[in-house]
Amino acid sequence: MVASDIRERMKLLAAKEIIHLGGGLPDPDIFPYAAVAAASDRIWSNPTLARTALQYSPSEGHGPLRAWIADYMTGIGAPCGVENILITSGSQQGLDFVAKLLLSPVDRAMVEIPSFIGALRAFDAYEPNYVGLAGGDPTGVKFCYAGPDFRNPTGTTMSLAEREDLLDMADASGMAILEDGCYERLRYDGQPIQSLLALACARHGSIEDVPVLYTGTFSKTIAPSLRIGWIAGPAAVIRKLVLIKQASDLATSALNQMLLLDVVQHHLADSTATACAAYRGRRDSMLEALAEHMPAGVRWTRPEGGLYVWVELPKHLDATRLTQRALAEHGVSAIAGAAFYPRGIPAERNTMRLSFSMIPSEPARQGVARLGALASEMLSSPQR
Amino acid sequence: MVASDIRERMKLLAAKEIIHLGGGLPDPDIFPYAAVAAASDRIWSNPTLARTALQYSPSEGHGPLRAWIADYMTGIGAPCGVENILITSGSQQGLDFVAKLLLSPVDRAMVEIPSFIGALRAFDAYEPNYVGLAGGDPTGVKFCYAGPDFRNPTGTTMSLAEREDLLDMADASGMAILEDGCYERLRYDGQPIQSLLALACARHGSIEDVPVLYTGTFSKTIAPSLRIGWIAGPAAVIRKLVLIKQASDLATSALNQMLLLDVVQHHLADSTATACAAYRGRRDSMLEALAEHMPAGVRWTRPEGGLYVWVELPKHLDATRLTQRALAEHGVSAIAGAAFYPRGIPAERNTMRLSFSMIPSEPARQGVARLGALASEMLSSPQR
Repeated sequence: MVASDIRERMKLLAAKEIIHLGGGLPDPDIFPYAAVAAASDRIWSNPTLARTALQYSPSEGHGPLRAWIADYMTGIGAPCGVENILITSGSQQGLDFVAKLLLSPVDRAMVEIPSFIGALRAFDAYEPNYVGLAGGDPTGVKFCYAGPDFRNPTGTTMSLAEREDLLDMADASGMAILEDGCYERLRYDGQPIQSLLALACARHGSIEDVPVLYTGTFSKTIAPSLRIGWIAGPAAVIRKLVLIKQASDLATSALNQMLLLDVVQHHLADSTATACAAYRGRRDSMLEALAEHMPAGVRWTRPEGGLYVWVELPKHLDATRLTQRALAEHGVSAIAGAAFYPRGIPAERNTMRLSFSMIPSEPARQGVARLGALASEMLSSPQR
Repeated sequence: MVASDIRERMKLLAAKEIIHLGGGLPDPDIFPYAAVAAASDRIWSNPTLARTALQYSPSEGHGPLRAWIADYMTGIGAPCGVENILITSGSQQGLDFVAKLLLSPVDRAMVEIPSFIGALRAFDAYEPNYVGLAGGDPTGVKFCYAGPDFRNPTGTTMSLAEREDLLDMADASGMAILEDGCYERLRYDGQPIQSLLALACARHGSIEDVPVLYTGTFSKTIAPSLRIGWIAGPAAVIRKLVLIKQASDLATSALNQMLLLDVVQHHLADSTATACAAYRGRRDSMLEALAEHMPAGVRWTRPEGGLYVWVELPKHLDATRLTQRALAEHGVSAIAGAAFYPRGIPAERNTMRLSFSMIPSEPARQGVARLGALASEMLSSPQR
């Protein structure tokens, strides 16, 4: 399994000598430890809060956190109330639940190609046939999965016009849009563009009438292991998703929701700024290193945010072979692009994803230099 | 939806004047707050632990917790290693994952009747046809779901002979057994009986050869909102379930797994003893109150553990009507038994579930007295 290959590689994190440009884990140096510890103290020193923290939470989520997220979503242009928010265990669970709600075997699901592997594996469980977003026919499509901002794996951003076109397509065809907002706050430069959900709210006048379900998370701006994400959408759909939540794992941890709420109330802006500052510098270094070390014929994206750069090697160079040799012979991990193509759609074999999230600029530069040297060697070798 | 009816009633917990014999939430008075707070301090005061706690955990679970649970399972007669354990977000997620792995639409799933409503809703998502365990034909059945100890909703326990018979049936038919071990440690009297998993390990010589998948949880012995459960079974099946975990919500919170591990290492025996002492007294009071207040013709189970008593009213008395009137007119909540019957199988309309978990003995006695008086009134009335 491709997904398990990636997880296996992520286990290599334990091996310190590897230069990790593969996995896209957030950098633990930027997690707000003191804020989480203080939030924790506030809970355990207050018997009423402590009781709530250890008892089952409602399936739809801890009320005060839902209210905070509703306000947050309203603040980014998607006016909504608590009834429009379901708390999930990370945004991954939101992707799974929407697929569970909307997909039956051989239903058509539209995805960007390449696409986030976690989303593809979530959808795969419900056995859809995949259609590519670019030029794809929306007829009979149940939903289109899209990551408009700096998406995994390409780092690219949908323009406002592309967003409006996608909304037009949804309105005309009746398909839903599953928007992955997980990187939205990790913008390092350029102008923010409104989310598909916000644009749809403006277009339809109310969140109750939009075809968009938005998944969000605090895994990138606060820390992943609180496992708090959310789905925002029309209340009628949220009510169905609450039943799915209940049948899947009853509820998300009340403790984690309370910790997260305390931290975001006081520290979301700071924590997001810290993450953006750290990742912006690493992105810049990686782009510089690519320009310096990659041979002619190699192209890459220049992301305005997020954690990833997508590299296109010359057509005849096999990225799977290159990444295998890079790890085995040069101690550099990267993910061959083939992993990010949906089942049934041929992969571009000459692509790979690099992440700048996990390691400081200097070793990352060295990693890119080694990848560049290996690419040059393979390009000049008769056995590529 | 019946499941949401129950959740709605659980929301009535907020209304203090109701005597709650309906929902089966654990009593928050018995949660080990000081132990969780101390575990929390140990994590936040140690930078290495803190980093692990906030970063993604492996999908299969936090290694030290898996190892502890493997030892625990070995200690209760099911020798296994870390490769036989998957950490889940409560045992509910284990039920969902096993159904997701084994069931396709119109597959046959065998269940005890009546059965735990959370399990039925988890299975429903995969659209099986249900077969009752008692006298049911195992031909083509994908798995049999069984709660051998004081199961929800009846409080009854499978005898050793019944367990061996079920294992015989699995061995002969090729079906799997999904064992729900969630109440196993809440035994108040009588002799413990080995789990289906332990008996199967003894029978087959190794956990790798058993047809049993066991789901466990700390929600009843420690606290529910850490949301930590596990599945134990053959390593080959656990590997498939890890991929399902990864696609469903990536991983369970590392923080919660570390908190739980710290607490169980030091306090599981104490915490279990506290729970058993509290619930034993409440069970005894409820059984006394039933004997004192129920009219002739009403029967009930006498559970050796767990949280529930199952009441059978005279055949012609409708428990749905009785529980509705009890709540509206007498401020007592109870759950009509019809909720616990699987889709497609006719419900016994004269049954209801009482829980003794949430409230002290005296108000519970009063609640039973009101239910008894109402049952007497309805029995003597021309409109039942």
